[in-house]
Amino acid sequence: MLSKAIKESLRGIETPFYLYDMGLLGRTLDTIRAEAERGDANGKSYKIHYAIKANNDERILKAVLERGFGIDCVSGNELRLIRRLGFPADGIVYAGVGKSDGEIELGVREGIRAFNCESRQELQVIDEIAGRLGMRARVALRINPDVDPQTHRHISTGQADSKFGISYREIEQVATELPTYKNLDFQGLHFHIGSQITDMRVFEFFCRRVNSLVGWFAERGFPVGYINMGGGLGVNYDAPDAEPMPDFGAYFDAFRRNLEVGDAEVHFELGRAMVAQCGELITRVLFNKINSAGNEVAIIDGSMSELIRPALYEAYHEIENLDTRAGDQRRPYIVAGTVCESSDVFASDRVLPELRRGDLVTLKSAGAYGQSMSSQYNMHSLPRIVYSDQIES
Amino acid sequence: MLSKAIKESLRGIETPFYLYDMGLLGRTLDTIRAEAERGDANGKSYKIHYAIKANNDERILKAVLERGFGIDCVSGNELRLIRRLGFPADGIVYAGVGKSDGEIELGVREGIRAFNCESRQELQVIDEIAGRLGMRARVALRINPDVDPQTHRHISTGQADSKFGISYREIEQVATELPTYKNLDFQGLHFHIGSQITDMRVFEFFCRRVNSLVGWFAERGFPVGYINMGGGLGVNYDAPDAEPMPDFGAYFDAFRRNLEVGDAEVHFELGRAMVAQCGELITRVLFNKINSAGNEVAIIDGSMSELIRPALYEAYHEIENLDTRAGDQRRPYIVAGTVCESSDVFASDRVLPELRRGDLVTLKSAGAYGQSMSSQYNMHSLPRIVYSDQIES
Repeated sequence: MLSKAIKESLRGIETPFYLYDMGLLGRTLDTIRAEAERGDANGKSYKIHYAIKANNDERILKAVLERGFGIDCVSGNELRLIRRLGFPADGIVYAGVGKSDGEIELGVREGIRAFNCESRQELQVIDEIAGRLGMRARVALRINPDVDPQTHRHISTGQADSKFGISYREIEQVATELPTYKNLDFQGLHFHIGSQITDMRVFEFFCRRVNSLVGWFAERGFPVGYINMGGGLGVNYDAPDAEPMPDFGAYFDAFRRNLEVGDAEVHFELGRAMVAQCGELITRVLFNKINSAGNEVAIIDGSMSELIRPALYEAYHEIENLDTRAGDQRRPYIVAGTVCESSDVFASDRVLPELRRGDLVTLKSAGAYGQSMSSQYNMHSLPRIVYSDQIES
Repeated sequence: MLSKAIKESLRGIETPFYLYDMGLLGRTLDTIRAEAERGDANGKSYKIHYAIKANNDERILKAVLERGFGIDCVSGNELRLIRRLGFPADGIVYAGVGKSDGEIELGVREGIRAFNCESRQELQVIDEIAGRLGMRARVALRINPDVDPQTHRHISTGQADSKFGISYREIEQVATELPTYKNLDFQGLHFHIGSQITDMRVFEFFCRRVNSLVGWFAERGFPVGYINMGGGLGVNYDAPDAEPMPDFGAYFDAFRRNLEVGDAEVHFELGRAMVAQCGELITRVLFNKINSAGNEVAIIDGSMSELIRPALYEAYHEIENLDTRAGDQRRPYIVAGTVCESSDVFASDRVLPELRRGDLVTLKSAGAYGQSMSSQYNMHSLPRIVYSDQIES
């Protein structure tokens, strides 16, 4: 929740812009670090990677770096950025179904901790490229565990019909071929079942799947020294002020209690859970109108160009009018963006206190997959960024 | 359809990239110009504006400018770009539900042909800004005609519950207030019922609505000298090679036969119909795999970052393997992009000739709402552009 002083300072800033709460970010990262240091049932620390695709803002990345976390990257450009910022190669894992030859070469040269490999063919290609370079590459197999994460179909990634990972159909053949790759060092297994998961039983079930898969590989002579459990922890989009930080205790407990993988190094990749609640998109009401159906429409100066989640996933973001006056009545609004598309609507039936032209309106929980998915559609400029610690003084 | 020579020239270019067919673009624009010059039933020319939001590539804009067409813009940045390129202010119309004060000021200063105003409040604001500048602004009312365009809900814009235009509920009040704006010159009416409309009866019905609205305004003492019918003509996404150009004859005929607006100047805003078939996204197959459900998956090096229409609208784009060999069998594929999102799939059950690693694969009909909606998600570089006339020599 924004303090009065911050709200006042926001008034002079041209909207729309992302506001990042650097204090909440720091507390969130510190909480995760404490849980990671507590580690598994035997006290062995968990390794934490930040999924940079959630938000590649450099100040956020520096806060991540300061905590000693690594990075989960998915492209060559992400890898270049984090190396430039000083992230050690040994803390970088690289996932993604479609790594290009150039991206693979970059990762091999950098000596990253692990390529999380998503297909048989990718293993062959990494082996060839490493061989050509006269180098070795550390690889983990991203296995699709076929676990239903009970989340939106767009952000579930570990089911049978998805594009992600190596399927049970190919796993046997991959295990057979593994010893034939002369330039690969097999590390272990990687999983990612989806995103925005809030039911801890999903993670418990997932752990049991992983336990049996680790056993399966060990039986075949592939000891698993690296387990990457992905991310997936959801945040409270419905009530961000009430729950500004996900329950990291319950999340890590689910793994602490259910994951049985000996002394393997256990890695996590958190993206949304680290940064979603630390960001909001601050906009201003431009116009009020009433459509033919009788709905009140408030047009704000943000749009799907700055925040595409509502248009793309029908995602819910809390909306607050920072200029609500005493006695303002609450009533249903369509809150729409400026872009010339019917899909550019942030809420279609949201009960809110009166929205007047000029009011500052914030879309909450926008720190993840906001700025990083922004476009210049309708030739919008890329969204400006404001950090809370720049305006608190 | 790409010639053999062009296909060969494409091989050396790093994928993914947009390829724009400048020959087809020129023929399309020339066809539209001939239809526009034929004009209405009395031989009065139609005024054509290109909806720049479809694609703001500068070479495309220059081809539009050479034909003497105007522009339909929706943001200050678009307005700045087209003025810089030399489009005359008198050929520029400016629509959009959320024009900021700064954007309105820019349009007033430039003396554009018309603000297509989408709300009562917008009229008030333009009047105030023009007054403050000591200038006049030409305005048209964008009326929401409540016509069902029989198209995807994301691209239908003229229905009762939409955010667009001035609704029948407010039209009476707007007409009452019009004479009170001291700095506005009322031009007429603007409409836009949606996009990708292929049933000409929709346009016929739309014309009859407009005829009665023009009469309604005339009866109240507002002669309508400017009618902007928007765009909306669909293209053949299913068979772009068979129909590389929409049937502009049938489109303009629908208006020629049904629009009865005296000697008003009739404007059209075409976006998709002008450029969609002139562009394709050229990609390369990175990996093949089989998922747990037994589907063959081909990962190509394009993604929703370069072309978001399939993820956002479940849009269909024809896919062609430019490297198909004699005897290749056709079978169903999931064709997926590189981005770490389940929604990044271009086709989930598409029967195609074999797709092998390294094959060049093109996503067709991507000239509209491709490049202009692209993002840098997953830190992808913005897509490269290649023009056919650069490689034909």
